[in-house]
Amino acid sequence: MSYVAPVTEMIFCAEQVVGQSRLALTDRFAEATAETRAAILEEAAKLCEGVLAPLNRAGDLTPARLENGVVRCTPGFGAAYRQIAEGGWVGMSAPAELGGMALPQSLTVMVNEMMASACLALSLNPLMTQGQIEALEHHAEDWIKALYIPRLASGEWTGTMNLTEPQAGSDVGALTTRAEPRGDGSYAISGQKIYISWGDHDIAENICHLVLARLPGAPAGTKGISLFIVPKFIPDDGGAPGVANAVKPIGLEHKMGLHGSPTCVMQYDEATGWMIGPENGGMAAMFTMMNNARLGVGVEGIAVAEAALQKAAAWAQERRQGRTPDGSATIAGHADVRRMLMRMRVQTAMARAIAYDCAFSLDMAKAAENGDACAAHTARGAFLTPIAKAFGTDTGIEVSGLGVQVHGGMGYIEETGAAQFSRDVRVTAIYEGTNGIQAMDLVGRKLSLDGGETALDLIAELRETEAAARDAGHEALAEALGSALAAAEAATKWMVAQSDMTERNAGASDYLRMWALALGGHYLIRGALVSGDAERVALARFAATRMLPEVPGLATAAAAGSADLYAIPAERLAG
Amino acid sequence: MSYVAPVTEMIFCAEQVVGQSRLALTDRFAEATAETRAAILEEAAKLCEGVLAPLNRAGDLTPARLENGVVRCTPGFGAAYRQIAEGGWVGMSAPAELGGMALPQSLTVMVNEMMASACLALSLNPLMTQGQIEALEHHAEDWIKALYIPRLASGEWTGTMNLTEPQAGSDVGALTTRAEPRGDGSYAISGQKIYISWGDHDIAENICHLVLARLPGAPAGTKGISLFIVPKFIPDDGGAPGVANAVKPIGLEHKMGLHGSPTCVMQYDEATGWMIGPENGGMAAMFTMMNNARLGVGVEGIAVAEAALQKAAAWAQERRQGRTPDGSATIAGHADVRRMLMRMRVQTAMARAIAYDCAFSLDMAKAAENGDACAAHTARGAFLTPIAKAFGTDTGIEVSGLGVQVHGGMGYIEETGAAQFSRDVRVTAIYEGTNGIQAMDLVGRKLSLDGGETALDLIAELRETEAAARDAGHEALAEALGSALAAAEAATKWMVAQSDMTERNAGASDYLRMWALALGGHYLIRGALVSGDAERVALARFAATRMLPEVPGLATAAAAGSADLYAIPAERLAG
Repeated sequence: MSYVAPVTEMIFCAEQVVGQSRLALTDRFAEATAETRAAILEEAAKLCEGVLAPLNRAGDLTPARLENGVVRCTPGFGAAYRQIAEGGWVGMSAPAELGGMALPQSLTVMVNEMMASACLALSLNPLMTQGQIEALEHHAEDWIKALYIPRLASGEWTGTMNLTEPQAGSDVGALTTRAEPRGDGSYAISGQKIYISWGDHDIAENICHLVLARLPGAPAGTKGISLFIVPKFIPDDGGAPGVANAVKPIGLEHKMGLHGSPTCVMQYDEATGWMIGPENGGMAAMFTMMNNARLGVGVEGIAVAEAALQKAAAWAQERRQGRTPDGSATIAGHADVRRMLMRMRVQTAMARAIAYDCAFSLDMAKAAENGDACAAHTARGAFLTPIAKAFGTDTGIEVSGLGVQVHGGMGYIEETGAAQFSRDVRVTAIYEGTNGIQAMDLVGRKLSLDGGETALDLIAELRETEAAARDAGHEALAEALGSALAAAEAATKWMVAQSDMTERNAGASDYLRMWALALGGHYLIRGALVSGDAERVALARFAATRMLPEVPGLATAAAAGSADLYAIPAERLAG
Repeated sequence: MSYVAPVTEMIFCAEQVVGQSRLALTDRFAEATAETRAAILEEAAKLCEGVLAPLNRAGDLTPARLENGVVRCTPGFGAAYRQIAEGGWVGMSAPAELGGMALPQSLTVMVNEMMASACLALSLNPLMTQGQIEALEHHAEDWIKALYIPRLASGEWTGTMNLTEPQAGSDVGALTTRAEPRGDGSYAISGQKIYISWGDHDIAENICHLVLARLPGAPAGTKGISLFIVPKFIPDDGGAPGVANAVKPIGLEHKMGLHGSPTCVMQYDEATGWMIGPENGGMAAMFTMMNNARLGVGVEGIAVAEAALQKAAAWAQERRQGRTPDGSATIAGHADVRRMLMRMRVQTAMARAIAYDCAFSLDMAKAAENGDACAAHTARGAFLTPIAKAFGTDTGIEVSGLGVQVHGGMGYIEETGAAQFSRDVRVTAIYEGTNGIQAMDLVGRKLSLDGGETALDLIAELRETEAAARDAGHEALAEALGSALAAAEAATKWMVAQSDMTERNAGASDYLRMWALALGGHYLIRGALVSGDAERVALARFAATRMLPEVPGLATAAAAGSADLYAIPAERLAG
């Protein structure tokens, strides 16, 4: 079976569980009515099902390759990309006056999910461009915005993000790429960047690189980093791609998955660039792009989980092995196969709701523009972002792993496609800030900004779901969520009380996971309550009996402290 | 860094944690003294470190290929295999009178672990042969034993296991391969078998296939299956490989990993075979081989976990990123990296102890020969076998996944080797009975054999560790184990009370995992107590604060029942 966009399920999550219908009540997103949103999703579904999904395996089998200094993409990717561009899908949330559609991020996230489910490798390209648009929108000078954003929003040009260097990965501040002012407003950029997704390709007429580099005499570390835009072809006076810039791909990585997405080593030899944002203020601009991208990467994980779920559920209804207790002829009747499929379904739904809710908060903050409401939405979105990224991508890995398992021996054979999901999605837990860094962001920056207030507000919000479940007679659901929330509250208070960040960091990953499951349980229960549907009650009960019970153990681990982690010298960690 | 056999750690686990020194007190294994065991392990370590480990990546890059009807192996595999054979490593536990060394399975398991850490793909070959020797030893006629076992034990010939057919995977009873008696004591075997590891190759002079097939008029299902040995070349009167038999590889699978291990589609066209065991009694003989193989596959998982741990720990001490709280210059100083490495270390140690203890019980049963002691050891080993297989392989997958994560972006690049571990080990949770089937075996057959007595005896055994921890002043360790055991006991009683196997199966995987963590915590605490070593106390504390707390949640999930799993019709499982 090929991918079918789960439009009904997505809309249920967005509207009923997360409550995104409130968006259309704001001035800014008044046009994003339920009808418009549904129409857009149906249109995107056609593209993803009909054009992108059939290319997914080709990307794996016929990777992009570097030939004579140019990256040649998987056959078919170019034509599909043009359909993405021409459909306006790249610039959905870009400003209307700059060629975009000014639609809420919430909706873009849903379309991105579909594209990534259908063909993750290709979908990374527009995703990078979207992040670049957002960075330019907030930090670039007007002439740059006017020149670049319309061409990026239309998909004629694509965008990349150049942070990493061999010695500077998670530690961005260690980068050494140099930018020398030329005196004419432009800069000469020199250095090498690695892991650049879609750093070069042959499917659009220009590629715009956002590059972090150091000015002469800049301070050490992250305080001395500036951001530059470096186009592959320098725009001529009419804004068309002109002379070739001194930037080129000098290598492609041989990766575990995502073969259709060229991961480039990029060489800059006095390439011409223009500064975005203030001198030495590159990190702030980069963070705009990265925050957008972090949510986007979380959605990549959810997208692959959804695709893996669909494939596994289809296989389970086809494969016959053994007698099943429910009398069905296929393995879908075996209790342990059901358990795996239900887990895949429930965990995907949890991660999706977290991501959609995060996007919703970010949109509501935008709609509010400023004031207390804006601040509250911003804080809520900021708190949910690392959870959406880390749990979304962990879910992609775990659910696609279960998908392989449901397929049995066939899951290990590449022709089936289940293994590809597993290989493709693996990197999402690493790039855009490893999931460990997301967790450190949650317990460090996010809990410190307001002394845990946003976290405790969120627990209060979840307690409303607990109360609603109790009122509706779902005592078992209420109790499972209540126990989880008590543990989450205790762990949060423990975290906030630690002034030594190492103590927090020691439990960061467990703390993030704990939050994801507590939130996930809340969303599933809310879905059961608002729909009153027996099948959704079963999903919520699965969450309550098989996932929420993990929360107290995670809370204990979160508050275990760092001493045991440092009791063994590094050189003896492996025994 | 290349693989270094963790001989000290392995011996600590076997002798101090599991107590295998008792083996040398038995008549049967009196020669397996601590000195002999250590000398054997040191010798095996040299082979694994110096010969096998350097080939691991070659196996991935230069897969076995099918050429003109013959499988050609990865360059270097043939020479390495001959060293395995000539070292006597294949026949370590084979009977002495048939060319083996009659050493305990406990020791073979340790050597197999090293071989699989060094090069999993190649190590599968001798592992299969070992399983075949065991099956022949227990079920074959004397002339077959005399002809085949010495040549298998010496490694001159290799063995395979042929169960699966396209329509008959987990449901072995659905197989259709036919065996027609020829009237001269031999049979003509016809049919197709798939997923045959090392089904053909060019690194030994003969290949002996154990094949499940049906006699004419045999009953349907597993009761009508017989077992046959089908050599690639029929032995001549002198026992040398003679005329070619009518069996050939007709395809190789394109797998996610284990590229160096040829996975064959085998075609039998009236191939000559001889029956092993009674007519229609093939499943019993096959189970002998499979029980051995299940423990062996669990050890494969542990082996890859160990190799992944070593690589990740080495990388963490080399890679510099960011300031670390302990002032170390490398990422090994970051709390979350430490958490990952400690988890890798502790979980690998847990899985290893379970496997070694399982092998120990099987050896003690053999040494006792019969009587109550034999029955008790047999039951204990049988209970631990599915746990060793499923948790060992899950550990391989999880720990190698963490290994990729510790490497950051480099982990996703194939040259690093971290991803290969992850791809190679993935199938171990599937073959030799999926981990779901292991879990069903645990809650079904194993709990039913004695109404849960073995399980409750094991809990009592673990309570001794809890008491010992308390006596030694490790109250926190005792309490963590005690809470886990209370949950495990409750879940066990719930399981035993379910007469409907579907209720048990619904919680089987969670129940197995619960047992693995409870056992694992017990072994780690025991290691801390017997050694009195501060670092081992830290490992035990890690288990107590970050892994044992998972047990109550797993116990709840184990007893959640099947209703919610069947509430949604199969065709709507994916939403």
